[in-house]
Amino acid sequence: MNFKKDTVVFVMGVTGVGKSTIGKLIAEKLKIPFFDGDDFHPKENVEKMLKGIPLIDTDRQGWLVSLNQLAKDQLKTTSCVIACSALKKKYRDRLNFEILPQVKWVHLTGSFECISKRMAQRTDHFMPIELLNSQFAILENPIEAIEVDINLTPNEIIEKVMKELFKKSEFGLFGLGVMGKSLCRNLAKNGFQISMFNRHVVGVEENVAANFKNEFKELTTSHAFDSIELFVQSIAQPRKIMLMVNAGKTIDFVIEDLLPFLSEGDIIIDGGNSNFKNTIERTDFLKTKKIHFIGAGISGGEEGALNGPSIMPSGDKEVYQSVAPYLEKIAAKGEKNMPCCIYIGPKGSGHFVKMVHNGIEYAEMQLLAEVYDILKVQGNNPSESAEILSTWKATANSYLLEITIDILRKKENEDWLVHKIMDKAGNKGTGNWATIETAQLGVPSSLISTALFARFTSFYKNDRVELQQIYGKRPSQKLDITTNDLFEAFQFARIINHYQGFKLIFEASKVYNWELNLSDIASIWTNGSIIKSKLMGDLVVVLKESDSILMNEKLSIKIKELKPAINKVVSECVLNELAAPCFSESVNFFNACTTANSSANVIQAQRDYFGAHTYQRVDDETGQFYHTIWK
Amino acid sequence: MNFKKDTVVFVMGVTGVGKSTIGKLIAEKLKIPFFDGDDFHPKENVEKMLKGIPLIDTDRQGWLVSLNQLAKDQLKTTSCVIACSALKKKYRDRLNFEILPQVKWVHLTGSFECISKRMAQRTDHFMPIELLNSQFAILENPIEAIEVDINLTPNEIIEKVMKELFKKSEFGLFGLGVMGKSLCRNLAKNGFQISMFNRHVVGVEENVAANFKNEFKELTTSHAFDSIELFVQSIAQPRKIMLMVNAGKTIDFVIEDLLPFLSEGDIIIDGGNSNFKNTIERTDFLKTKKIHFIGAGISGGEEGALNGPSIMPSGDKEVYQSVAPYLEKIAAKGEKNMPCCIYIGPKGSGHFVKMVHNGIEYAEMQLLAEVYDILKVQGNNPSESAEILSTWKATANSYLLEITIDILRKKENEDWLVHKIMDKAGNKGTGNWATIETAQLGVPSSLISTALFARFTSFYKNDRVELQQIYGKRPSQKLDITTNDLFEAFQFARIINHYQGFKLIFEASKVYNWELNLSDIASIWTNGSIIKSKLMGDLVVVLKESDSILMNEKLSIKIKELKPAINKVVSECVLNELAAPCFSESVNFFNACTTANSSANVIQAQRDYFGAHTYQRVDDETGQFYHTIWK
Repeated sequence: MNFKKDTVVFVMGVTGVGKSTIGKLIAEKLKIPFFDGDDFHPKENVEKMLKGIPLIDTDRQGWLVSLNQLAKDQLKTTSCVIACSALKKKYRDRLNFEILPQVKWVHLTGSFECISKRMAQRTDHFMPIELLNSQFAILENPIEAIEVDINLTPNEIIEKVMKELFKKSEFGLFGLGVMGKSLCRNLAKNGFQISMFNRHVVGVEENVAANFKNEFKELTTSHAFDSIELFVQSIAQPRKIMLMVNAGKTIDFVIEDLLPFLSEGDIIIDGGNSNFKNTIERTDFLKTKKIHFIGAGISGGEEGALNGPSIMPSGDKEVYQSVAPYLEKIAAKGEKNMPCCIYIGPKGSGHFVKMVHNGIEYAEMQLLAEVYDILKVQGNNPSESAEILSTWKATANSYLLEITIDILRKKENEDWLVHKIMDKAGNKGTGNWATIETAQLGVPSSLISTALFARFTSFYKNDRVELQQIYGKRPSQKLDITTNDLFEAFQFARIINHYQGFKLIFEASKVYNWELNLSDIASIWTNGSIIKSKLMGDLVVVLKESDSILMNEKLSIKIKELKPAINKVVSECVLNELAAPCFSESVNFFNACTTANSSANVIQAQRDYFGAHTYQRVDDETGQFYHTIWK
Repeated sequence: MNFKKDTVVFVMGVTGVGKSTIGKLIAEKLKIPFFDGDDFHPKENVEKMLKGIPLIDTDRQGWLVSLNQLAKDQLKTTSCVIACSALKKKYRDRLNFEILPQVKWVHLTGSFECISKRMAQRTDHFMPIELLNSQFAILENPIEAIEVDINLTPNEIIEKVMKELFKKSEFGLFGLGVMGKSLCRNLAKNGFQISMFNRHVVGVEENVAANFKNEFKELTTSHAFDSIELFVQSIAQPRKIMLMVNAGKTIDFVIEDLLPFLSEGDIIIDGGNSNFKNTIERTDFLKTKKIHFIGAGISGGEEGALNGPSIMPSGDKEVYQSVAPYLEKIAAKGEKNMPCCIYIGPKGSGHFVKMVHNGIEYAEMQLLAEVYDILKVQGNNPSESAEILSTWKATANSYLLEITIDILRKKENEDWLVHKIMDKAGNKGTGNWATIETAQLGVPSSLISTALFARFTSFYKNDRVELQQIYGKRPSQKLDITTNDLFEAFQFARIINHYQGFKLIFEASKVYNWELNLSDIASIWTNGSIIKSKLMGDLVVVLKESDSILMNEKLSIKIKELKPAINKVVSECVLNELAAPCFSESVNFFNACTTANSSANVIQAQRDYFGAHTYQRVDDETGQFYHTIWK
């Protein structure tokens, strides 16, 4: 808090608590002006009060406006203390008007007995004691105030007020969207003293932080701001500020806005879905400003953020230690109560891992959509499909399976809600980035791209409608498969999806020298995360033994058992003209990656034929390159 | 040409042609020193010659070295003219040693009769006429020289020499790799006067341009350089310089190297496989330097570049007009003899189109590899497979089909060469970029990425070998399909591949406001290009009617006819565990994009469930977004 200017301390309470006395002492201590609100009452009010007639709200309106104006005028040059009863919330709202972030409330409290006894001792006051009763009756206790009992000595009172006024937050959260808000409540519920910021955009985002703070009890001791300067100043150094704003250029703008107020050694944590390459650049840039940067992927959606998300932080390991107590406390808890938050690796790696996490999520969602489609063709309505999926929970439970069951059960009037939902699936970047990284790193994580492209295809709704008119509606009949075939196919495809995802992380780790631990990563995805599942729990163990899921002996036996089912399901889909792109790709990829000798020799020969790109030979272990004049 | 320094004009010819006389006149005209080579003969040589004893090569060695040294010394400060018989190529090579790009040769020629008559009239010469015979015997006509008949008057001779010395090239080609060389020969064969540059890297690239010029007769009048300054100066303004160097940072380095020597209005053409985004940036950058930039994708490989490639130029349309005569002349000729080179569109669009071209190529190659794989499983050896493919030429011919037939027929000793080629297929960037653009533009060109990922998978050879040991070799038996099924499946998948490729161009054209003409683009791919095919010819017509190949009525009938075959082929591949990723994806994509109501509603519901991403409703045409609290 900055007491040079920019803060108004309102000292409130019922008549007789000593607002003027304490207010003056506070002002002296802080070397700022003091005003007694009562001095600003219009003549009519003073007369009424002298006559013992209680003021009504309309009497107070002009007075509150002038006090608010007084505060505003003062704020132009200095801080100040104003004593004012302000017993109702609406009075305080009027006093806070347009200066909320700059206002601190001190509430002096005491019992009726104690105060009436005091009042009896006082002679210089125009408020007859009879009114104390009515004041207690209308008092609405403020939630945002520093509360002090008047039984303390004046010195004790001042000491407490000073301590509270200058108390800094431990942690700052910048950006109160769905995720930011949930994380604030999570932090507060875990006992952290936080500062919360949201920008002020006239007509669009007004008083977001303050309103949010007032909405939830756990935020009572949190500080709300829409001034970046005050927000930063309210946090103890070295500051820990988590950004929960839109990924992309916004992050850079926010960093630019924060920088003038930060101090050497402060830590910014980007908790959004930033591109890992930008995170690396930002870390390097901020290093030149002596500010630390932690890129932390966070999964779990609104609910996870509130009750325990999965967190993937990366950056300098020592810096991470400073923020670990906060992140690990608010994270979900996995097996043996271990937090679903571990230090992932050097700068950028956390956001890379989160990107792949989301890629896996894309494919898991697409597989469930394909399952739904097949169940529909088999004649099940959504509720029936939900029942079938429920039976899968015993062996293949996952968060996404659970919510799909909820979704399929949801009815609206006589119909299922899912029938009303437009079949256009959006995307917000991470699936695209995962596909792009896949292409750039040379790793065939094809289920991610297949799921992404399926969403793209869904967006061409008009084309699809027109093309169905040309090519006719299919499929015309049920598939010749059992529900168990479908279940096994689903499990097979999920294993391939996870294999590809972890392979992508493994290869990136090699390329970027991150030394990532795949088993640890799986472990923080076992809870809090959108892709938490029984399978993920199994993979924690599998990945301890080998970086390649497909090479695990126990799992390979399982895969061989599942394979006939997916062969059957995919071939039936193809023969009956039902699109099942992720199922299908999982089979093709598996067949390709388990084939020692592929037909890629023909491609390399073609490349040599027309472009002299040369080739290696199977009978030359030196890896030498050859060129042939083919014709 | 710069006559202040940096050029040595050697005047050569048999004794008696007037080398000294003409040499002196040239030197006077250019205001540079003249040297008579004969003045530098050691005493022993002069004595031998006076005695009428012909010099042998060892006699000449020291003399040539000293003349070469003389030239080098002069070049430090000035240009010069040196008269010297230099009848044999190896003498000239010695004289050119280390200064080749700075050397111009003038060859004075005349008949034996004419020269011997002249010699009889001369008294001041120590070379007895008897030696003329032997000189004619050893004369090796130079290919790189300005040739002048001595029957002309001295004035006429000087005029011709001056004209030739100062003659500027019409077109410059920078970078003599496989493609650059072929384009040079193509330009020269088409009668263009060109300058050719290749850098000099000691021990790696030495005298590349000069050696190349000497290798091919059509390059006789071309100019070869390894000095950027001289190269640029040799080209008439406004200069047209095509870069054929590695895409990426190299292009920027080359531009940086060229800039100091270029003049306002000069045109750089990038004929490499540059990323279209870089091309846009370069165009903008060069505009600030008042230099024009044309990005031109070129397809056809070595052979196409030599005999007529397909060219996709883009940039400022007016600027294109200046280079059109060259590009359109050397391009392949399509239907009605139209050049396979048209103005594609604004900056970057040509390289974008080339990128998609290469993406289509990736998928076409992968489809042929899958065909090969299936034919192999059906028991055909490569020659037998080639025979089958030959029968497809009548209805489905393509360049890639033809070369695949050649490849499969190629034998080495008793075995087929294809059996010896390592099954690791490389890639050079355009397939990756196409996949990346697909991901960024939201267009599901899934066959390109599937083909790219198949190449990636091929690169994990060790993994594949290990995994086959775990999962066993498959397939175990022949597929239950006919060769005609395979052919029809192949044609189906190719149509989908082309649909996706043109769709990607169509969508990019909308996003970037390029206003591309898909039919025109197909037309320049009907010849010269690696993806030229009968199908491409058909698509020129189809795309005139509609931007969407799948919506063409005639083609849709064809597609419906082909569909059962690919269903059969893909399902048989899946059931028999043979990877056929592009075949398979073509079916899945088609099934998805012809389905009016997909399962994407489930995905959008999931997104709304965990991330409050909202959804649209099928029963609300306003497109409003809804959010549901699902549980």
